[in-house]
Amino acid sequence: MKLVECVPNFSEGRDKAKIERIMSVVKADSSVRLINYESDADYNRTVVTLVGEPEPMVNLILKLTEVCLKEIDLNHHTGEHARMGAVDVVPFIPISDIKMSECVALSEECAKKINELYDIPVFLYANSAKTPERESLPNIRKGEFEGMKEKIQEANWHPDFGSPSIHPTFGCVAVGARDFLIAYNIDLQTADENPAKQIAKAIRKSSGGFQYIQAGPVFLENRGHTQVTMNILNYQKNPIYRIFETVRMEARRYQVPVSGAEIIGLVPKDALIRSLRYYYSLEGIEFPEDPTLQDIVSDVKKYLLFRDFDETKIIEYFL
Amino acid sequence: MKLVECVPNFSEGRDKAKIERIMSVVKADSSVRLINYESDADYNRTVVTLVGEPEPMVNLILKLTEVCLKEIDLNHHTGEHARMGAVDVVPFIPISDIKMSECVALSEECAKKINELYDIPVFLYANSAKTPERESLPNIRKGEFEGMKEKIQEANWHPDFGSPSIHPTFGCVAVGARDFLIAYNIDLQTADENPAKQIAKAIRKSSGGFQYIQAGPVFLENRGHTQVTMNILNYQKNPIYRIFETVRMEARRYQVPVSGAEIIGLVPKDALIRSLRYYYSLEGIEFPEDPTLQDIVSDVKKYLLFRDFDETKIIEYFL
Repeated sequence: MKLVECVPNFSEGRDKAKIERIMSVVKADSSVRLINYESDADYNRTVVTLVGEPEPMVNLILKLTEVCLKEIDLNHHTGEHARMGAVDVVPFIPISDIKMSECVALSEECAKKINELYDIPVFLYANSAKTPERESLPNIRKGEFEGMKEKIQEANWHPDFGSPSIHPTFGCVAVGARDFLIAYNIDLQTADENPAKQIAKAIRKSSGGFQYIQAGPVFLENRGHTQVTMNILNYQKNPIYRIFETVRMEARRYQVPVSGAEIIGLVPKDALIRSLRYYYSLEGIEFPEDPTLQDIVSDVKKYLLFRDFDETKIIEYFL
Repeated sequence: MKLVECVPNFSEGRDKAKIERIMSVVKADSSVRLINYESDADYNRTVVTLVGEPEPMVNLILKLTEVCLKEIDLNHHTGEHARMGAVDVVPFIPISDIKMSECVALSEECAKKINELYDIPVFLYANSAKTPERESLPNIRKGEFEGMKEKIQEANWHPDFGSPSIHPTFGCVAVGARDFLIAYNIDLQTADENPAKQIAKAIRKSSGGFQYIQAGPVFLENRGHTQVTMNILNYQKNPIYRIFETVRMEARRYQVPVSGAEIIGLVPKDALIRSLRYYYSLEGIEFPEDPTLQDIVSDVKKYLLFRDFDETKIIEYFL
């Protein structure tokens, strides 16, 4: 069975009634599995995680676009996160039995229909981008809703689908296919942001670290400590345990304990097993042939200090 | 005082009398400091490390070229290392008070004179390359002495200085400016090459590891164990301690002890101090303000397990 993940982001994170009206469309669609949705009031944005078959997924994205078009007017939207559309971005991610090229085709089909049905201009981004400048979403979105009014008229920035003028209330949207990534954060038991900053620099690609790691420091006001917040873009080449142990090694020089770690969204079972094998081999224990998801959950809590983690964060739970 | 390092490689590593005749020219020149020279019989090649001021350095390279032209005939040369010239490659490396752009100019001056004086065709490589394909020495040298006879006639591969035909006995040479690099090897106490291979893959840029690390596995027949052999292209961004600790962390899963490490050629004092600071901070000890080279040597033996290391491997010893 071909399965894709889709993580649409829409531009409402404060008005709970409105969020629920929008989400009711998603919840009503039994053909696609809603993994979770998280609204952030500061960002004024909601991130929805969906897993399903290709065609039902496209149909649901169209329905989501329709309800967001009705509910959201970007002329009255403020928030800390950059945005250019009521639905801002729609990434398609291959999960099982489906190639990247098929996800690119799916994103193009979805983009075309969004434009045809709702007269919303659409940019293809990430692996679906037609030019290198459009691979990066921040690059497309620069100027945001307000700036896109003029930017989209420039020959360089005409949309991939639709006419070169944004929708007056919806704005425009980026649709594309990208690789799966693991959003992974490591807790440092200090309120001082410097260790997290130095450690992020040590491990991230952009400052000379591991090739598939994006990282930055963040202070969690509610929890009272800092984190190294990361995306792992390729967990085969930059496995979780290697990142975790490198962060631990760097943290030692600041005398800062690494007190926990968390996965935001989903993680493939294979990514966890690869890392658990490391810890088993340290202890000279043979890794079990077919561990249950419960076994895996208890092991990642023990070895990788995962918190707030259960089997519903593992993709295979839904397959 | 402007100082450059220059590391000419010449194609003789077996005939000791011949090597000494060639090196006598270098040893007789008191205006440039001979740091060391190492001949490898399997490679049939000698690597010379020199430090000095720009103009005396170019003059010495010309004298070295002249004696190698007289002593070496590549038509009778065999060896494991790829080569295209009697003097095969001449890199200029900024050491102190000199910019990369000045080293590029110096390499161009040297290349021009080699061609004018001895009618040897010269390729500019590394930072001196005029086209991206010539940045990589292996790319230029592909085909080696034997293949260059034809390759150099292709429009794409005409030399930067000289006519498009190799010298009948000398061949041709690559001259260029490049950044300083640290040649660094870590000993694994096993004859099994698999751990070294897996660890090299984990840390090197080309398979997803650190941005400024080149690495591969090697088995040292005489010593009876394997190594992870590396170049550190930027020790500020990929400091020695981080590489050492990551290799240690990875080696643990194979139950293989990391038993030592070595620097081939020279290392800047700053690279060692940066790494020692890590170990001092682990122990909560303040790092001394102005450590002597002897102190540094004893510390890197203790913390980084350097073997065969003394202060004459530290660049500052010669300044």
